[in-house]
Amino acid sequence: MALRIALRQKYVFLGLLSSSGNHGRVATVLVSQMRNNATSPNIKVDFNQSTGVAVLSMQSPPVNSLSLDLLTELCINLEKLEMDRACRGLIITSNQPKVFSAGLDILEMYGKSPERCGEFWRAVQEMWLKMYGSNMVTIAAINGSSPAGGCLLSLTCDYRIMVDNPRYSIGLNETLLGIVAPFWFKETMANTVGHRNTEMALELGLLYSPSEALKIGLVDQLVPQDQLLTTATETMKKWLAIPDHARQITKSMMRKPTLDKLTSNREADIQNFVSFITKDSIQKSLRMYLEMLKKRKA
Amino acid sequence: MALRIALRQKYVFLGLLSSSGNHGRVATVLVSQMRNNATSPNIKVDFNQSTGVAVLSMQSPPVNSLSLDLLTELCINLEKLEMDRACRGLIITSNQPKVFSAGLDILEMYGKSPERCGEFWRAVQEMWLKMYGSNMVTIAAINGSSPAGGCLLSLTCDYRIMVDNPRYSIGLNETLLGIVAPFWFKETMANTVGHRNTEMALELGLLYSPSEALKIGLVDQLVPQDQLLTTATETMKKWLAIPDHARQITKSMMRKPTLDKLTSNREADIQNFVSFITKDSIQKSLRMYLEMLKKRKA
Amino acid sequence: MALRIALRQKYVFLGLLSSSGNHGRVATVLVSQMRNNATSPNIKVDFNQSTGVAVLSMQSPPVNSLSLDLLTELCINLEKLEMDRACRGLIITSNQPKVFSAGLDILEMYGKSPERCGEFWRAVQEMWLKMYGSNMVTIAAINGSSPAGGCLLSLTCDYRIMVDNPRYSIGLNETLLGIVAPFWFKETMANTVGHRNTEMALELGLLYSPSEALKIGLVDQLVPQDQLLTTATETMKKWLAIPDHARQITKSMMRKPTLDKLTSNREADIQNFVSFITKDSIQKSLRMYLEMLKKRKA
Repeated sequence: MALRIALRQKYVFLGLLSSSGNHGRVATVLVSQMRNNATSPNIKVDFNQSTGVAVLSMQSPPVNSLSLDLLTELCINLEKLEMDRACRGLIITSNQPKVFSAGLDILEMYGKSPERCGEFWRAVQEMWLKMYGSNMVTIAAINGSSPAGGCLLSLTCDYRIMVDNPRYSIGLNETLLGIVAPFWFKETMANTVGHRNTEMALELGLLYSPSEALKIGLVDQLVPQDQLLTTATETMKKWLAIPDHARQITKSMMRKPTLDKLTSNREADIQNFVSFITKDSIQKSLRMYLEMLKKRKA
Repeated sequence: MALRIALRQKYVFLGLLSSSGNHGRVATVLVSQMRNNATSPNIKVDFNQSTGVAVLSMQSPPVNSLSLDLLTELCINLEKLEMDRACRGLIITSNQPKVFSAGLDILEMYGKSPERCGEFWRAVQEMWLKMYGSNMVTIAAINGSSPAGGCLLSLTCDYRIMVDNPRYSIGLNETLLGIVAPFWFKETMANTVGHRNTEMALELGLLYSPSEALKIGLVDQLVPQDQLLTTATETMKKWLAIPDHARQITKSMMRKPTLDKLTSNREADIQNFVSFITKDSIQKSLRMYLEMLKKRKA
Repeated sequence: MALRIALRQKYVFLGLLSSSGNHGRVATVLVSQMRNNATSPNIKVDFNQSTGVAVLSMQSPPVNSLSLDLLTELCINLEKLEMDRACRGLIITSNQPKVFSAGLDILEMYGKSPERCGEFWRAVQEMWLKMYGSNMVTIAAINGSSPAGGCLLSLTCDYRIMVDNPRYSIGLNETLLGIVAPFWFKETMANTVGHRNTEMALELGLLYSPSEALKIGLVDQLVPQDQLLTTATETMKKWLAIPDHARQITKSMMRKPTLDKLTSNREADIQNFVSFITKDSIQKSLRMYLEMLKKRKA
């Protein structure tokens, strides 16, 4: 059973990636990646006491899909870093090749009980609230494709640097799967690229190449792969030169209205998600999507 | 009397067009257009059952001015298409040469009773509510100038393709006539081109050339005249590839807050319009404008 | 004592300018400027009855710092012009070389009683309310650097023309000093350059070169120094060609929601500012900043 799930899981996220056109290549790499990860943690944190900067790497094979487990682990690590006054900056990146994060794990939404779906959604909310409201300077070092929830995770950061590889893509492409980005995904994107870009992107489920993403402001900077972490580190220095209290109050002023909308509607948002995702028609959409992926694979 | 109104009507909308500098040329064409339209409908709808796409062409000579009659006919057609589950997409265009729509009919606002003005304004609201809130994919194929209400009609669509002819212009130019775009015109534009572009455009009554309109995002794409409908049709295919329910929920999420503002203030908005437009000073502005147009013509 | 304050005042504002990298040059010029200004007014107004346009020049040495006195004088002049029906347009500029305005006077915030801080803040609010809500057409002719409150003053105008000199800079750089731009500074900027540009600018205290400012829309136009006033005058003609009542109602529609937020929270905003600025930690930040400037100077 575990194996079957693992296989289906792989299909799912390769499927997501395949919409950016590099299905075959990634698949080959990922299968080899999956072999010796049984005991490795899903998240690796390197905290540099002297700079006050932590680098958090997602390493959940094959494609850092945001399962309940990974989200929980992510939130625990974020909370630890947030409470450590020595930690002022966070760089978030991926240890998986060619992907930053493939987004929310579809298998957490397909064939699950309403209770389990609700538990999963609460974890997605928690991740967003912790990241978008973080007092730390947060920089996304996007070293691969970043669809759906992976894009959301990037959008919660203060700054986004992406590897300039046209094979990678980024965007909130939920409609392609027949599902819908909730209002707080939408607001996070609109706060970044404006209302009209968000309307087009969400209705069409657009995935942007790095250069397109830069053009509309979905990412802030493109760099070659081998300069990603040094650029993120240099950028962090610039942000940390600002007095923390002034930067934090300013960040809160910019983001609190958006954060408050979810905080004050959290249970309703969960109910809304659960009743939507457990609909027969939506489950059917997800099943058809999963089956399409299996066929593609076969 | 009917003839006199028709003549004045022509002056009015040519006047609107003249602000984009092509008064003389359009006038000549339009006079010939007016001859054999007495019995033709103001709106033509071609619905293709196999694609699920309807093409709605405005053909109200001379310049598709949005009179109470045309607005009513437009709303009836929109309602029919909206209720037809087979119709998933709508392309809106003009059968008049050189103009998409010259906007709201000034003669519906000049020398009319408050009751009639209120009836007219309710029809403008109805058109906007139906278009901006449509469940169909809506594409504006803008094959000519599109000032004021014509621009609004374009802005309600999901996507705007304009013919790349520098003689055409588009914009909410109400202030040029001494009148004011109401808050929902403003919000529709701000949702498309942002707050600052809207502020400048509305205060100065700016009319943009196609290339200027593209630059600020007032339209999404420019094409040569002879590629307009094929491009609209190709674009529609891309939008219809998205599952309807996911796209519709997403569209509603983006637009409902703006729609709700009018829906919950509809009567107040009508009263506001009527009391503004029936002011002596505003009627005087409109009369001077009409007289200026007559003199230009003579 | 007066001399000592004057000297510290100079340091403070040179310090603000120094963050744009032209500390030494400005200092030399400013010292000579300070000599014969003892009796000159802080504000000069030239009102042209025939055009209906007033040019208001700030001439408060050395760098038009917005002290309680200058703000009060500014508000009195604005009120006079606003109430003069013959005055339809206002061009605001600086008679000091190389600086438009260095922003809020730090010495009004350092070592002052809560009462005095509150009085100062009320004057800042008053200036913003009068400028952002003005019925006149307002154009900023930005002939030098314009950090912090100087940038805010520019942002309240309908149109911004800046001298294209890469030594000049503009931006809301409050965080660099450990203080925070309040919500209405933020909203004024977001209404101009959007949410994301504002978030980055305010968190990092960014100062933009004229060409960078043009790129994000923080200013509308760049011109050589010797064309600044003629360009402002020509631009004003274009704005004054619009009927006043239509332009004013439209301007109010665009800005009233933002104005109302402060009007209905004015006392709370003052209390908030006073309790923030009188904190030991903030006073310490300001003292360290002032001492750093003295050392730089020495």
